Amino acid sequence: MSHLSDLEIANQSTLKPIGEIAQKAGISEEALEQYGHYKAKIDISKVNTQGEKGKVVLVTAMSPTPAGEGKSTVTVGLADAFNKINQNVMVALREPALGPTFGIKGGATGGGYAQVLPMEDINLHFNGDFHAITTANNALSAFIDNHIHQGNELGIDQRRIEWKRVLDMNDRALRQVVVGLGGPTQGVPREDGFNITVASEIMAILCLSTGITDLKQNIANITIGYTRDRKPVTVKDLKVEGALAMILKDAIKPNLVQTIEGTPALVHGGPFANIAHGCNSIIATETARDLADVVVTEAGFGSDLGAEKFINIKSRKANFEPDAVVLVATIRALKMHGGVAKDNLKEENVDALKSGIQNLERHVKNIRKFGVEPVIALNAFIHDTDAETQFVQDWAAKNNVRLSLTEVWEKGGEGGVDLAKKVLEVIEQPNEFKRLYDLELPLEEKIEKIVKEIYGGSKVTFSSKAQKQLKQFKENGWDNYPVCMAKTQYSFTDDATQLGAPENFEITIRELEAKTGAGFIVALTGAIMTMPGLPKKPAALNMDVTPDGHAIGLF
Amino acid sequence: MSHLSDLEIANQSTLKPIGEIAQKAGISEEALEQYGHYKAKIDISKVNTQGEKGKVVLVTAMSPTPAGEGKSTVTVGLADAFNKINQNVMVALREPALGPTFGIKGGATGGGYAQVLPMEDINLHFNGDFHAITTANNALSAFIDNHIHQGNELGIDQRRIEWKRVLDMNDRALRQVVVGLGGPTQGVPREDGFNITVASEIMAILCLSTGITDLKQNIANITIGYTRDRKPVTVKDLKVEGALAMILKDAIKPNLVQTIEGTPALVHGGPFANIAHGCNSIIATETARDLADVVVTEAGFGSDLGAEKFINIKSRKANFEPDAVVLVATIRALKMHGGVAKDNLKEENVDALKSGIQNLERHVKNIRKFGVEPVIALNAFIHDTDAETQFVQDWAAKNNVRLSLTEVWEKGGEGGVDLAKKVLEVIEQPNEFKRLYDLELPLEEKIEKIVKEIYGGSKVTFSSKAQKQLKQFKENGWDNYPVCMAKTQYSFTDDATQLGAPENFEITIRELEAKTGAGFIVALTGAIMTMPGLPKKPAALNMDVTPDGHAIGLF
Repeated sequence: MSHLSDLEIANQSTLKPIGEIAQKAGISEEALEQYGHYKAKIDISKVNTQGEKGKVVLVTAMSPTPAGEGKSTVTVGLADAFNKINQNVMVALREPALGPTFGIKGGATGGGYAQVLPMEDINLHFNGDFHAITTANNALSAFIDNHIHQGNELGIDQRRIEWKRVLDMNDRALRQVVVGLGGPTQGVPREDGFNITVASEIMAILCLSTGITDLKQNIANITIGYTRDRKPVTVKDLKVEGALAMILKDAIKPNLVQTIEGTPALVHGGPFANIAHGCNSIIATETARDLADVVVTEAGFGSDLGAEKFINIKSRKANFEPDAVVLVATIRALKMHGGVAKDNLKEENVDALKSGIQNLERHVKNIRKFGVEPVIALNAFIHDTDAETQFVQDWAAKNNVRLSLTEVWEKGGEGGVDLAKKVLEVIEQPNEFKRLYDLELPLEEKIEKIVKEIYGGSKVTFSSKAQKQLKQFKENGWDNYPVCMAKTQYSFTDDATQLGAPENFEITIRELEAKTGAGFIVALTGAIMTMPGLPKKPAALNMDVTPDGHAIGLF
Repeated sequence: MSHLSDLEIANQSTLKPIGEIAQKAGISEEALEQYGHYKAKIDISKVNTQGEKGKVVLVTAMSPTPAGEGKSTVTVGLADAFNKINQNVMVALREPALGPTFGIKGGATGGGYAQVLPMEDINLHFNGDFHAITTANNALSAFIDNHIHQGNELGIDQRRIEWKRVLDMNDRALRQVVVGLGGPTQGVPREDGFNITVASEIMAILCLSTGITDLKQNIANITIGYTRDRKPVTVKDLKVEGALAMILKDAIKPNLVQTIEGTPALVHGGPFANIAHGCNSIIATETARDLADVVVTEAGFGSDLGAEKFINIKSRKANFEPDAVVLVATIRALKMHGGVAKDNLKEENVDALKSGIQNLERHVKNIRKFGVEPVIALNAFIHDTDAETQFVQDWAAKNNVRLSLTEVWEKGGEGGVDLAKKVLEVIEQPNEFKRLYDLELPLEEKIEKIVKEIYGGSKVTFSSKAQKQLKQFKENGWDNYPVCMAKTQYSFTDDATQLGAPENFEITIRELEAKTGAGFIVALTGAIMTMPGLPKKPAALNMDVTPDGHAIGLF
C-alpha cells in the first residue's frame, strides 16, 4: 500500500492541460475560460445541451466517524472506474472551504490515487468562488447597516437582523461581535456575528440556482430580518439583488478540473450539510449531465442528511432523479457503531461489526425508501482484516444488497471497476423513485416524516420558540418550502453519542430559520457550529511556500 | 467630443485574446497563466530578464480636486501614445478596490478612450489578488486571537494589538467593533476594527516585495502589537509567515491586461496613497522594465504624496530611478486652487488661473528637487476655454517647463503623441537624480525634510504621543525606515481647505504607525479614514447583471 501523503501523490501526478480535458468532455474552446494551465470556468451558455441528459449516481454514506469514511475519494475513484470501462463520465463535487485548512482538516479533494487536481489550488482560492460569495454576503451586511444608519426607511428592527457577516476563516473571536461602535458617524451599534462562508445563505443559493436570472430572483427573496411588528424584510426591499448577483457573475460558472487519471471533474459550490443542503451546484450537475452519460456526484454526511436533502431539496429544485445511489461504508465506522472506542478501531472485532452493521442497514433501508436500490462501497482501509471484510460481504449477500470492496484510494479507478459495474446494473434496471414528502404538507408534518421515516425516531417535539415560529412562518406564507434538517451527522438521533441504529427516540426542534432565498426552512435540532475555531497548534504553523511558489504543508 | 460613458466605450472596444497581447509584450506561453480570455497572471520566473532594463516614466499630478485630474487616464493614454510612435512600451498601474464601487466612485482603470480592459473584471474581483490579501490579513487576526485564547504564551497585550481585520467593502459599521464576545469558548473580548483591504499592511508588503521569499521575510517582520512591557510582537513570533505567504502565492504574480488600443498593461497591487505608499507593485514595474523599453507608471495623489513616496520608498527599495516625470494638471483644478468654488469651475476664469497656477508651480519645483525635469500634461476637459488653455501654455513657456495639451480621454493615444515626444526628450537627456533624504537620518529629520522641502511648510510639531513614539521607535531600532506621510491630498498643508501654495505653515504629526513589514513608518498628520462608508443612495442600487452575465451600472 502507498505510504505517500495525498499532497505527494498529487505532486507526482502529471496534469494534462485543461484544454485537453475540456476537449475530452466535449466543451468547446469558446466555452472554456482558463484559470491558469489546469483550471477553468465554463461559460454554460456555450455548452451544447442537445441530446439525452446523463444518468446521475449519488454517492452518500453510512453515519460517519469524525475522520470521515472517504466519500469524496470513492466519488472520484468511481468516476475514474467508469472512465476505465469506457463510459463517458464526469464527476461533480463540492469545493472545499479555505478557512479550515489552517486548522486541522485535510482537503475535500479525495485522497490517495483518487483525487481531483491541482490539489493546492482547489484547496486555496479556487477560481475565487468563495471570495465572491464572501463579498456578496458582506456587501449585503453593509447595505443593511447603511440603510439603518441613513434613516431606516424600511423600519428594520436592529435587534432582529438575521443576516450575519461571513469570512472563509476559522475564527472563533468573530462568532459574536458588536458592530457600529464609535459614535453617530460610525453606524448604529448592534449585535452581530460572523459565520464561515460555506454557511452563507448565498452559498446555498448559488448551489440551488439554475442560472444568473434565477440566482438574482433567489437573492431578492432572502429574508434579512424583521420590522418591529415582525414583518419580514427582504433583499428586494433593499433593492440590491442586482448588485449582489453582479458580484457573483463569475462564481456561478462551474469550475473544470481533472482527476489524477484525467477524468473531467466539475467542482462547484460547497454549502454546509447541516444548516444547508450539502451538495455541489445544480448548474454543475446539470452541465455534467449535458456533457456526459454518467455523472457521479456526492452529498454531505450520511444518507439521513445529505442524501435526504439531495432528494428532497436539490434534485427536486433541478427536477431530476438519481439513477443509482452508492452507500460508502467502512469497517472502521461499522465497528465504531458497534461500540468500539476510537483508539481501538484498528483491532479486529467481528463481534462489534455484528452490532454496528445495524447502522448501515438503516441507511440501506433509507435509500430503498426513495425507490432506488443502493450499492454499498466498502471502502478498504489498511487495518481491515479478511474476517471483517468477509463478515460484511456475507451480510450483504444474505440481505440481498449489492456490495463492492472498493480500493480506489490505493489503486485509483482500477480499484473501483467492480463497483462501477454494479452501479451500471442498477442504472439499467427500472426504479420506482419517489421523494419523501410533498411540498404541500405543513412544515411540522414534513419534519415528522423525516424523523420517523429516515431517522427511525418516534416523536418530534417543538420548543416553544419553534412552535411560535411555525405559526409565524405559516402566516408569512412559508409553509410550502422543503425542510433542511440541521442535525449531528454522527447519529440518527440529535445526540452525537447515540451510535448504531437507535429506536424509539425523540427529536427536539429547538428553532427554525427561514432561508427564503435558498428556498428551504432550516430546522435546528441542537447547537450547530457555524464558525469553527483554530486548535492550539494550527496546521498553519507547518505551512510554507517554496521559492518557486508552491504550497508546503497544505496537507 | 464623445458622450459615451466609460463602460459604453469599454464595451464597444474589441479585445484581443490575452495570448496575443502577451506575445506582443514578449511573454512566453509558458509564463502566461490565463484567467479567462482577456486576463492573465505572469509567472515571472519564466520571463526573459536578459538585456537592458526599460526606462521609467512616473505620472504624478498637481494637488487634485475631489473628482481627480485624470492621472490614470493620462498614464494609459501616454502609453498608447508611445505605442503609436513605435516605442516598445508597457503601462504599470494599480488595481482598483472593489468596495468603493458600491458607494460613489468611478473606476481606476482610466477613462474615455484611454482605459485598460476588461473594465468590469478589473473593477470587480480581478484575478483574486485583493481577496487573497483580505484572507491573509484576516488569517493573521485569527492566529492572534487564537494565540491569546489558547493561553497567550507570547504575552500579547490585547489592548495594544495594532493589527486590524480588513474587508474590501465600504462599511462604516465595522470601523469600531468588539470581538470575542459570548463567553470563554468564544475567544477573549477586545476592541478591534476593520479597515478596507487596500489599507492592509499586507497590501503594502505585496507591492514592496521583490519576490515570494522577500514577501515572506517582510510578512515575518510585521509588528502586530506589543506586550505589556511594550516589546513589539511580530508575525515571526507567531510563526505563521509561511502560511500567510502561501495564501499570497498567486496574488504576487502580476496581472496582464490591455489598453483599448492593445498596449500591454500590468495592473498589480493598490495600496493607499496616504497611510501607505500608493504605487503599483515593484514586481510589476520591474517585470515591465524587463519586457519593454519604456514603462509608464503612476503614483497616488499629487507629487507631495505619491511621487515623494515613489522616490523615497518604492524606487529606493527596488533600486531604480524614474527617467522622466509627468505632472498632470487641469484647468479645473488650477481654478479651484485660485479660489473658485466647486459649482463655478465650468465658467471661464483666467484671473483665478493666475493665482491657482502657484500650486502647479510648487509641484514643478518638487519634481526638480529630485533632479528630474518634469513634463506637464495639461489634461483637456470639455469646459476649458481657449483663453484659459493659452494662459497655462504661456505660463509654461515663460517658466521654461515642458507642457503638452493632452487629449487622450477623447482621442486615445493619438491625443498624447506630443506629450510622449516631450517625455522622450527628457528621457534622452542626462539627469541628476537624487532622493530627498538618506535613511540614516533620524525619523523626525526625515519628516522635517519632507515638510519643509516638499510641502513648503516652516515647522513640524509632534504631539506628545508622537514624541513618545519617536523615542520608543528609536529604542526598537526603527529609526532607519523611510517615512510614509499620511496627509490630505488636497493641500500641501495638513488642512484640506488650504489650497494653492500656502507658506509658513506648521504641520502637526499626531501619531506614528510602525509598518515594519512594509518597511516604513507612517506619520499621521490628521484623521485618515481607512474604512469608507456608503452614501444614502449607494451606486449599488443601479447595479445589475444581464441574463448573459455582464455587469450593468458598474460605472
